[in-house]
Amino acid sequence: MTPIGHVTTSYTEPSETPSQASENLPVTGKVVLREDLVDALLGLERYPFLWLITWLHRGAAVPAPLQCVPRAAEAKGQIQGVFASRSPRRPNSIGLSLVRQLEIVEHTISFAGVDLIDGTPVLDIKPWFADCDLPPG
Amino acid sequence: MTPIGHVTTSYTEPSETPSQASENLPVTGKVVLREDLVDALLGLERYPFLWLITWLHRGAAVPAPLQCVPRAAEAKGQIQGVFASRSPRRPNSIGLSLVRQLEIVEHTISFAGVDLIDGTPVLDIKPWFADCDLPPG
Repeated sequence: MTPIGHVTTSYTEPSETPSQASENLPVTGKVVLREDLVDALLGLERYPFLWLITWLHRGAAVPAPLQCVPRAAEAKGQIQGVFASRSPRRPNSIGLSLVRQLEIVEHTISFAGVDLIDGTPVLDIKPWFADCDLPPG
Repeated sequence: MTPIGHVTTSYTEPSETPSQASENLPVTGKVVLREDLVDALLGLERYPFLWLITWLHRGAAVPAPLQCVPRAAEAKGQIQGVFASRSPRRPNSIGLSLVRQLEIVEHTISFAGVDLIDGTPVLDIKPWFADCDLPPG
């Protein structure tokens, strides 16, 4: 697993970011892709929403607890297993952020909806597809 | 990055699987979690749909092409950058599968919707949340 690039955002501390990208559409960020991967962006401009799969590096070096009290409203105040939460502290510190694509210029993708701190490594980008990513019904 | 477990399914070859889990709800599989992580499942039974973030190990050792012709209907026959596709062959071979949770027994989660071959390593499990995972509007 090697980062494909990193994000640039205005946040420097995880505690400053909203718990979900979708809560924060007025704020924009950028994915700066490795230049050698620019050909892998062909056609990406056709998809308005993208998944950013990231490595939540801050704190990833310390073993994560198996349970937490998530920030998300779904379970406020209630202890949960980390796999029942979107907590950034988990056995593998993988982040999954749904963002709105704004513009691609060379190897930089601007997006709206930021829940990541500046410098977060990006592991993968995938288009959001209704037929993959919506529960049936 | 260390697998948290693996899936068991009836498929042994990537070419046999459908391109998306949601196309294949009649078929069920299991996540066999590492036993030391069972406490991280607390509360997971409340969420009907789960993301499985996986390592698409078959072929991951060979460098992926940067462009492909995806199987998905969205772009049939048209060459795409791999980041504009859900192709399993990508710079980091990360899979993102939305599955329906059926049952949790000890450290095994049964699910409906299989697009993974038997033995695929699982890197993370997250609940599907409408407010994280649905594009606004």
